[in-house]
Amino acid sequence: MVNVALLGFGTVGSGVAEVLTRNGDLIDSRVDDLVRLKYIKRAREVFDGPYQDLFVKDFSIIEQDPQVDIVVETIGGTGAALDYTTRALKAGKSVVTANKELVATHGYELLQLAKEHGVSYLFEASVGGGIPILRPLTSCLAANDLTQITGILNGTTNYILTRMIQAGLTFEQALKEAQDKGYAEKDPTADVDGHDACRKICILAALAFGHHVYPDQVPTEGIRHVTLGDAAYADSKGYKIKLLGRAIRQPEGKVCAFVAPHLVADTAPLAGVEDVFNAIAVTGNAIGDVMFYGRGAGKLPTASAVVADVIDIAKDLKRDRHNGWASGSPDLVVSDDGLTSKWYVRAQGTMDQARLACGEIQPLARSGAPTSEVAFLTAPMPRPLVLDKLRGMEVASLFRVLD
Amino acid sequence: MVNVALLGFGTVGSGVAEVLTRNGDLIDSRVDDLVRLKYIKRAREVFDGPYQDLFVKDFSIIEQDPQVDIVVETIGGTGAALDYTTRALKAGKSVVTANKELVATHGYELLQLAKEHGVSYLFEASVGGGIPILRPLTSCLAANDLTQITGILNGTTNYILTRMIQAGLTFEQALKEAQDKGYAEKDPTADVDGHDACRKICILAALAFGHHVYPDQVPTEGIRHVTLGDAAYADSKGYKIKLLGRAIRQPEGKVCAFVAPHLVADTAPLAGVEDVFNAIAVTGNAIGDVMFYGRGAGKLPTASAVVADVIDIAKDLKRDRHNGWASGSPDLVVSDDGLTSKWYVRAQGTMDQARLACGEIQPLARSGAPTSEVAFLTAPMPRPLVLDKLRGMEVASLFRVLD
Ligand SMILES: NC(=O)c1ccc[n+]([C@@H]2O[C@H](COP(=O)([O-])OP(=O)(O)OC[C@H]3O[C@@H](n4cnc5c(N)ncnc54)[C@H](OP(=O)(O)O)[C@@H]3O)[C@@H](O)[C@H]2O)c1
Ligand SMILES: NC(=O)c1ccc[n+]([C@@H]2O[C@H](COP(=O)([O-])OP(=O)(O)OC[C@H]3O[C@@H](n4cnc5c(N)ncnc54)[C@H](OP(=O)(O)O)[C@@H]3O)[C@@H](O)[C@H]2O)c1
Repeated sequence: MVNVALLGFGTVGSGVAEVLTRNGDLIDSRVDDLVRLKYIKRAREVFDGPYQDLFVKDFSIIEQDPQVDIVVETIGGTGAALDYTTRALKAGKSVVTANKELVATHGYELLQLAKEHGVSYLFEASVGGGIPILRPLTSCLAANDLTQITGILNGTTNYILTRMIQAGLTFEQALKEAQDKGYAEKDPTADVDGHDACRKICILAALAFGHHVYPDQVPTEGIRHVTLGDAAYADSKGYKIKLLGRAIRQPEGKVCAFVAPHLVADTAPLAGVEDVFNAIAVTGNAIGDVMFYGRGAGKLPTASAVVADVIDIAKDLKRDRHNGWASGSPDLVVSDDGLTSKWYVRAQGTMDQARLACGEIQPLARSGAPTSEVAFLTAPMPRPLVLDKLRGMEVASLFRVLD
Repeated sequence: MVNVALLGFGTVGSGVAEVLTRNGDLIDSRVDDLVRLKYIKRAREVFDGPYQDLFVKDFSIIEQDPQVDIVVETIGGTGAALDYTTRALKAGKSVVTANKELVATHGYELLQLAKEHGVSYLFEASVGGGIPILRPLTSCLAANDLTQITGILNGTTNYILTRMIQAGLTFEQALKEAQDKGYAEKDPTADVDGHDACRKICILAALAFGHHVYPDQVPTEGIRHVTLGDAAYADSKGYKIKLLGRAIRQPEGKVCAFVAPHLVADTAPLAGVEDVFNAIAVTGNAIGDVMFYGRGAGKLPTASAVVADVIDIAKDLKRDRHNGWASGSPDLVVSDDGLTSKWYVRAQGTMDQARLACGEIQPLARSGAPTSEVAFLTAPMPRPLVLDKLRGMEVASLFRVLD
């Protein structure tokens, strides 16, 4: 018998309980043992419904029960979640989580702690929701020297951009719709300002390149300033605007990681990723490009990934699953200034001014554009150069083009 | 030290040697041990180049060397490959292969043999080339009751269909181009008649649903009879023609599996999979839909998957990786007759005749169509019904529409 304690009973936590119950027979047969939910702890002190017998008020009951093998943390944040995770690992229990914020900020130390105590700390659900990505990255692609990861890592922003492009909604209208549909929180900051995508690219970069990358090292730009005009200009030349998290290996073990809106050519697989779907493209020196696609959030998809980690651990409680990464360092992450790409520019001015400033450009047009506005694609160049060239112009949007 | 013997030194075999050498340091660090290529056996008795010191003529040297931990079979077919695989497993060596024909026809018995001898038989590269699919299916999606798998499983046919659709080439012209580019064999039968896709859907169905499905149980239709006219009609309503391998779970543990050309809506992720790329969509009761995309063949991508299996085994030679499936049975696989879908029909006749025969239809048009030709989409119905309705018409093409 493998006993599981569940911390948090919100969207993901209740999904985990549901999957463990609904697919229980199947899970037991895959583990070749009985996997049982023994305790549930949440913040509030009341609990009703089918699982009320499992309810505990005090984490120390879980911590001190030697029969608990696996603790599933679906609380979120870095407060109680960090405290309970630390205590569970120290008590010799493996921990599974969906908490990207905790992994992105404390992953290194928690993985070390797990190793010290001979247990596992797994977090497949923290990136891409239900999409299998972390385990494939570390096991299926293990023969590769990985060079690049590019992902649509946040479903809320991808939904908003899709609705702007397909239905002509403004950012505010599309955000409102996402909130009404339950895809966006009342306070959408973490999503629309790119912080959620930032945490996920940190985790991906750490696993792919072997060193902890901290969110505050990663320049992060959200989508609040993307306009319908930008979407129309992009569309006129066969591009879609997507919020991408990117991590690119640099010489001497350094990593270039950032989050920003990009123009993505319609023919690229990432351009076809619509609505709340996520996708992560990985480049390795043997595999070339491979892409993983699916629902990046939601109760059951996320629970699917959490329970997959539970099954993995339950199959062999003591196996060394240490895919840990080394510690980070202040100078590990370099800015994307050195990265050359074409740029999309929308600015006040004329095409002549644009040509004078940037040389060879590809002009863009859209119907209804004010005569004072100009939009174009530049030749490939690094950011400092394009900024220098544009010095004399009033720039409204400046996005990279993904090639 | 983990010693590897390589059988076969063609496209995949030489790729495996290259990846093991080029990424050697990285692989050793991931395994936390030294992984070394000790022997190479091929058919011909001559060998030169950098690996000639490893060359052996006689398989029994490999079989009898207790230091050989892992045998990599990249010979293909079910002759020598079956003999050597059987002998290697019996000698207590784990075996890794890219050989879909062998796994699809003898997977059950070879997995049993591996289990008996406490070793592993892994074949990630046999489906989807380098795309991680088998391990994600059995580990990352383990919390799911899987219900359906739909894949573009053959790069050659996908390349041919893409070129027909995008460049207006006929089947013969596109095949010739694929052969010139090295994407298709001189004898393209296994690819264009769907046998390769059939073997792959057998392996996927076995892993997803737990019972061996044999290639001769799976109705298989290739793409030789797909015309430019079909592609044009499909395009007129926003569909692409794709060769799909499908496996759908049926009540009472039965499986509906088949390979056939389909019309796929442009908006579906599978429609965007072009050229030699493959993609596999999987549906589970928690995850919903998830898709894996990448190069389904080629020297280094395929070697990437083979070496990932080698690394997995090398990390822990004796771990039980038994994701085996149970034996098959003659009545396990049911035909797709019972599966309801819309149908694409191209036939001799008039739209009035079509309406009279099929009732409510969606007419299709293309420029340059002979007046004697009619094409349309039917309402959803199972195959026997559409065949019955079309009895009086001379049907040239009949393809399912994937919804
Ligand atoms: N929602 C998604 O689709 C999704 C997808 C991927 C990852 N995640 C991650 O999964 C985690 C959980 O997200 P969620 O959407 O499920 O959040 P949620 O719906 O807000 O649920 C949070 C749960 O944590 C409980 N909680 C709060 N403080 C606690 C404490 N001190 N002790 C025990 N329980 C406590 C809450 O208890 P009460 O029920 O009593 O309030 C609630 O049940 C987050 O890290 C999130 O980033 C979510
Ligand atoms: N090519 C791909 O992209 C790809 C992708 C996925 C899976 N696969 C699968 O991988 C396997 C190998 O394909 P491949 O394209 O690499 O084939 P290949 O290029 O034709 O190579 C076959 C190799 O097997 C050797 N061989 C034949 N009989 C042998 C024997 N009795 N003992 C030892 N070696 C023998 C040949 O020796 P000689 O060199 O002396 O002729 C040759 O080196 C097949 O099962 C195929 O379906 C291939």
